[in-house]
This record gives sequence, structure tokens and C-alpha cells, in this order.
Amino acid sequence: MATAHRPRKRSRCQPGRSAPLRCASRPGWHRKCGSANHATGPIIAGSPPGEIVPGLQVLDAVEQGTIECGYTAGYYYGGKESALAIDTCLPFGMGVRQHNAWMLNGGGLELTRQVYKKFNCINFPAGHTGTQMGGWWRAEVKTLADLKGKKMRIPGLGGAIMAKLGVIPQQLSGGDIYPALERGTIDAAEWSVPYDDEKLGFYKVAKFYYSPAFWEPTASFPVIVNLKAWEALPAQFREALEVACFEAYTKVPAAYDAANPEALKRLIAQGVQLRSFSKEIMDAAWVATKQVMAEESAKSADFKRLYDSYTAFRLGVGSWFRVAESPLDNFTLYQAR
Amino acid sequence: MATAHRPRKRSRCQPGRSAPLRCASRPGWHRKCGSANHATGPIIAGSPPGEIVPGLQVLDAVEQGTIECGYTAGYYYGGKESALAIDTCLPFGMGVRQHNAWMLNGGGLELTRQVYKKFNCINFPAGHTGTQMGGWWRAEVKTLADLKGKKMRIPGLGGAIMAKLGVIPQQLSGGDIYPALERGTIDAAEWSVPYDDEKLGFYKVAKFYYSPAFWEPTASFPVIVNLKAWEALPAQFREALEVACFEAYTKVPAAYDAANPEALKRLIAQGVQLRSFSKEIMDAAWVATKQVMAEESAKSADFKRLYDSYTAFRLGVGSWFRVAESPLDNFTLYQAR
Repeated sequence: MATAHRPRKRSRCQPGRSAPLRCASRPGWHRKCGSANHATGPIIAGSPPGEIVPGLQVLDAVEQGTIECGYTAGYYYGGKESALAIDTCLPFGMGVRQHNAWMLNGGGLELTRQVYKKFNCINFPAGHTGTQMGGWWRAEVKTLADLKGKKMRIPGLGGAIMAKLGVIPQQLSGGDIYPALERGTIDAAEWSVPYDDEKLGFYKVAKFYYSPAFWEPTASFPVIVNLKAWEALPAQFREALEVACFEAYTKVPAAYDAANPEALKRLIAQGVQLRSFSKEIMDAAWVATKQVMAEESAKSADFKRLYDSYTAFRLGVGSWFRVAESPLDNFTLYQAR
Repeated sequence: MATAHRPRKRSRCQPGRSAPLRCASRPGWHRKCGSANHATGPIIAGSPPGEIVPGLQVLDAVEQGTIECGYTAGYYYGGKESALAIDTCLPFGMGVRQHNAWMLNGGGLELTRQVYKKFNCINFPAGHTGTQMGGWWRAEVKTLADLKGKKMRIPGLGGAIMAKLGVIPQQLSGGDIYPALERGTIDAAEWSVPYDDEKLGFYKVAKFYYSPAFWEPTASFPVIVNLKAWEALPAQFREALEVACFEAYTKVPAAYDAANPEALKRLIAQGVQLRSFSKEIMDAAWVATKQVMAEESAKSADFKRLYDSYTAFRLGVGSWFRVAESPLDNFTLYQAR
């Protein structure tokens, strides 16, 4: 498929992306990156998700230099290196703003770069979804007993936590979820936020839409660049790529935050039933999360180093958010409606 | 005073800023803006706050072309045009993320640009403080009765709301606040967040540090550029300025969020007493805010147009934040400590 920005002579990077095409709500960051360099020509030629490499092989392709950069998510590669999951988010972890503060002013960027470096890559944070939804369920789940034996499409750390609650986590890629949910091969599936979820049509085959995805207080997306390609880039191209990523870092969550309310309204108009996980489930998930974090920390020194930094930062920033941000936010959010 | 980035031949803009020098925690956005253009030389030469023009006259200076751009806050000019206040924030309004979503995807940028255009300027959002503190008080204020007759340094819409609660609002610029608070000429003064407040030393003369600044759920800072100077800029310089502002838009709140917890800890170690406004005061402020908003809407068609857009957007985004973001945020914030 042709894109608006075809490669020119000076193009250096071919991004892949990891989301199914219909979820390509992620930003045209390469457009901006290109246009920031009128003087020298665009440095990025964009390609639709999956066109150059399959969605979950972006890291491999960039590591090997098959492509020079990609727009992806660290937790897709958690099986390869669990520490990469922390680049995306942690269960019961920080939301968009706190995650940004950790990345930019709490050591997160340096720490995640040490991990990506092992894969011959350098990462630039370039987007967020905000807190995701807890998935589509064919039947209500009110208690821990209701969760036992349920098959749920949920990968990564979220799956490990759900397993401790008796769920049988399933690994299915985007396109396989809908038919499995429709046939009842699985009982539930989590994906993203309303704007993304709506496009995949899960509401047609599972009416109960749970909140929140406690395993995904946000999902942050980096642009990853092959290190050799990065080092070969002229300085002004490096700057252009860096600032283009910063632009996406602000624009992507803003676009999601603006689009989700309308998507949620449309879903509800289709008969979707909103539900919240019960306190029993949330409390058990909190305990299970502590266990999973301890297990991962024991297995990987990289995971432990990032987790310790992330957790210490969260404690500090939380002590401030509890003073002004959160009380005012709560007051206003529940008055203004 | 010399800066790290002295003007070169191609410099086009001289920014002024509106914060006292000791609060110059705001970003070196012009550095990035400059460095994004290695090929062509920096386009911005930075100057410390107040050096070229007094802090609160940045809009005038940019309007008249005395300087070509400035880093300032719309609500400093609320007396000139009340609608400009909405560029910064509204009392009981949206925080950083929601404000960004309104600006970038809810029509806010177009609407605020229509207002700045009357002053011969174009605005680029380029930073946030996050929710501010409710000021420094020489004595505790527990009830509405306690507020009556208190003299408080609080400008703009916050002052108008406080006046309805019996407070006598005072207009004092940054440097005049400390001596007035020390002598007891005023009973209270609001300024910013812990990181900024600490630098001005208010804790030495007023021990009670109230939360939150319900009149300031965040403060957003734009770079404003003289329209003629903007139109004369070559396209790649315009792009560079735009992306540099986006970078600051992400980096400034991250820097504040990371710095505030430590500043707050240091303040408490100095004997500062944290207090929250009582429910009686918050509820009365909510009602007073509605009145002030109605009054301002009746006085200015521009204010009304922006206020209506802002309010409609907030209702929508709030309906989504109440589903996933806020419940998970609250659960985690009060568990993880």
C-alpha cells in the first residue's frame, strides 16, 4: 500500500509497527519527523503495520537491521526479556504522567536503553494509550470463584497474574481473538481502550466490558532504532527523530483521550454492559501482582533493576499526587457530570 | 546576563518569560528549538525572565513586535481579555492530560488561537505545572467563617472566586509577596507547586500549606509568537519551533512531577504543616465558581465560546476517565504506599 510519504533518496529508516492495521490509531509520527526536515528531505518512510514484518517481530527485524526502525511496544517481547515489559507499563503501576516523569526525570530512559541496547536498538518514547479496559467477557465475573477455569486471551505479566487468580491465560494474536471469542473457545479477551476495541468488534460476541485493566495502567510505545543506523544518522536527523517522538508522546494520549469517550458511547448504544472488577478480585490481583513481580525479579537482574527504580519513583511521585492532583481531580470528576 | 545560547546571525526570535528568575524551572525549550536546526543555525536566542521586558508585559511586547516571541501564561492577561485565562486553566477544570486533549483534539488550540490573533500573536502550548497548591496561610482556615476578611494574594479568576467566599483578594507580583506575608499585610498567598514555592521561601513566614488550588488544576504555558514574525519564518523554522514546543509540552510536567515530591519533603522537614481545604470550603468554592463562570460568560463572548467548548469537552472526557483511569489510579495510589 502506498503511503503519503514515499521514500526519497535520503530516507534512512523504514518503520514497522506492531498493531493490526485496523488499530493503526497510532500517530503519523514519521510524517512530522519527515516534515521537520524540509531542508534535507524526510528521513522516515512509513509503512502500514505488518507490511514489512509481522507485528510481533519488529524488535527482531530492527535488531538484525532488516528494517532500521519500528514503532512497537516493549511488552510484546517480554518473553525474550522480561525487563522490556517495564518500558510499556507495569500491572498496578504508573499512568501516563507518572510514567513520563519516571522515563524523563527518574532514570527510566537510561535504564530501558540499557536493555534495548542488548538488542542492538535505542528507544524513544513516542506514545501512550492511557489506562486500558479489563476486557470483553461472555458472562459476568463477580467473584474469584467466577474466574476459576475461565479461558482469557491475556498475554504477558497480566496473564501471569490472572493465572494466579485461577484464569487460564491464552496467547492469541489480534486477528485470532474475534473468532475464538465468537465460538466460545475462550471466555474473555482483553485488548486495549474503547477506541481500539471498537474497531475489532468484540462487542458483537461478548457483551460484558470490564474495567479497569489493572495490568495496564497505560501502554507506552517507543520508536526503536537500530543502533548502527542511529549512529550513522547525521546529527540534525537524530534531533529531528527525537523531537518527532516527543511530539507523538504528547499527541497520542491526547488523541486517545479525545476519541475514547465517543467510542464508549457508541459501544454502550450497541448494548455493551459496563462492569467493574469487584473489590474481591482487585484485592486478590494486587496480592498476585506482588508475587509475580517478586518472581520476575528473582529470574532477571535486568527486570529487578528496572522494577526497583520504577517502584521507588512511584512511591515518591504518589506521595505528591495524593496531596493536590488526586484530591482535586476526584472532586471535580465526580461533581462535574 | 549571558545565556548558553547567544544569538547568531539567523536568530529570529527573542523570548521573554513571565516568571521571576528564581522560578525559571521552565524549560530550555529554545535550546531544543535551536538544536533542531543545526543545519541552519538556531532560531531562538533565550533570555532570562524579566531581562528584556517585565514578566507580565510579554504579551504586549510580542504584540507590538518589541520582541518576536515569549514564553508566558495566558491568565496573566485575563484583565485584558478574560478568554486568555482559559488557555492556562479554569478553576475546577481539567488537569494536564485532559487539557492537552482539549487543546489538541477538542478544538482548544483553534479557539485560543482566535483570541491570541486579536493580539497579533500565535500560541504554541509548551508546558504545564500540574495541579498547584492552595497557598501559604499564616493561620489555619477550617470553615467559611475563617475565610471572611482574610487578605490573600490571589489574582484572576481564583481571586474572583475567593472574593465570593469572603476573602479580600490582593494583586501582588512575585517579588512583593514574601515581605507582605512576613509583615502580615496579607494573611495568605498562593503561588505554584512545591518546587516553585520552595524557591520563594514562603515557608519561612507562613507555615500552613493548603491543598489544592481548586482554581488551578494545572497551569499551561504557551510560547507566543508575533504573527508577522511567524509568517516571515521559513517553513522549516516554523516546524522546528512547533516540535520544540511539543517537546517542552511533554518535558515540563514530567520535570515538575519528578521534582515536586522531593521539594515537598524538604518543606515538611522545615516544619511546614500540610492542610486540605475542608469540604465546606470546597463545596462553597464549587458554587462560587459556577457563578464566576456565568458572570465572565455574560461579559465576554470570547470567554463564553471557549468556556462552552472546554466544559462540553470536560464532560465527555470525564465520562471516560471515571470508567478506567480514575478508579485504577485511585486504587493504586492509595494501596502503593
